[in-house]
Amino acid sequence: MLTLYSYWRSSSAYRVRIALNLKGLDYVIQPVNLAPAHSEQRTAAYRAVSPDALVPVLEHDGQRLSQSLAICEYLDQTFRERPLLPDNPVAQATVRSFCLAIACEIQPLNNLRVLNYLGEVLAASDLDRQDWYRHWISAGFTALERRLAAHPGPRFAFGERPGLAECLLIPQLYNARRYECPLDPYPGLRRIESACAELPEFIRAHPDSQPDKPETLP
Amino acid sequence: MLTLYSYWRSSSAYRVRIALNLKGLDYVIQPVNLAPAHSEQRTAAYRAVSPDALVPVLEHDGQRLSQSLAICEYLDQTFRERPLLPDNPVAQATVRSFCLAIACEIQPLNNLRVLNYLGEVLAASDLDRQDWYRHWISAGFTALERRLAAHPGPRFAFGERPGLAECLLIPQLYNARRYECPLDPYPGLRRIESACAELPEFIRAHPDSQPDKPETLP
Repeated sequence: MLTLYSYWRSSSAYRVRIALNLKGLDYVIQPVNLAPAHSEQRTAAYRAVSPDALVPVLEHDGQRLSQSLAICEYLDQTFRERPLLPDNPVAQATVRSFCLAIACEIQPLNNLRVLNYLGEVLAASDLDRQDWYRHWISAGFTALERRLAAHPGPRFAFGERPGLAECLLIPQLYNARRYECPLDPYPGLRRIESACAELPEFIRAHPDSQPDKPETLP
Repeated sequence: MLTLYSYWRSSSAYRVRIALNLKGLDYVIQPVNLAPAHSEQRTAAYRAVSPDALVPVLEHDGQRLSQSLAICEYLDQTFRERPLLPDNPVAQATVRSFCLAIACEIQPLNNLRVLNYLGEVLAASDLDRQDWYRHWISAGFTALERRLAAHPGPRFAFGERPGLAECLLIPQLYNARRYECPLDPYPGLRRIESACAELPEFIRAHPDSQPDKPETLP
């Protein structure tokens, strides 16, 4: 039994939803409402699940795992069908490096807690924060686009099937669109985005398909 | 033949140096001077090695690999002796999660490029930047200390031998000390730091032991 503690708009939870779907696994979504008016992650009940008050958490056979990339690796190792990573160690390192270029170089800088700090402590204006957001998207996407250009050809980032790279890339593109970041300079990333958008594994993982998406947005 | 493109004070390069030493591998250090007066990473010669102008890069049998965690995973997979990760998938996920809590939640926010942006674009003062640095160290270390407290006992973070967790933790502690962050609240982290400080693998990986450490600091 697999349970995913998830929030519809959390890009880290979105990564794991894609991974679960790509691997064809059945799972139950347990929504955690991160919206500021609720902050369910800070309740004692959720702290018992995640002492760090972070989403996502995967529960499997009584074990609780955190950090989206560690969860994806765990799933890939535990359920061998439909691998998310290639076999060859160099190819694996190349995919992991692409994923870490998102997980370590882009996403952490554009987190809600960081945007809050910029506004609350450094008195950054909304425009400053928009520029900040776009700056790290632009720097990060430029590097990713360069990586794709180094081995053009396949339908997805590293082959004819989507894998771990797409688990990271698609949620990051969703975030970039949400903050209206210009995506024209990244035809390679957009091509992969279009290819994924047709697949049921990605459609079902999308924030708009989540059971906890509110009917009216705050 | 293993070559590591490294900078003495880069915490990401420091991670890989520890990993190489813990695995008992021979390697050559190829220094890349990241100091602002040199910015060797931006030269055409280094761009040929790393199009993203990032350190570290590991060269092995003509292949070039980037992103410190992907490099550590590659080393652990390619050279099976002295594993950095436990065998059991749940234990592995727990170690990876600890590592990602450093690589995704702490280090990216305190990068030089981020501190530069804060100063140059947002006109943050030196004091503001010092507070920023300490804030993310404090939030991150509090979470790591809580993880250690959940399974007290072993000499290192996850057992009687150091592994991937220490490859990430020790450079982050080095950075925290460099920026004079208070470490009193983290006895568990400091205990591991002391245990590692005695080991030749960590001593040889330390910034102060690097061939490219300048005799006088800028």
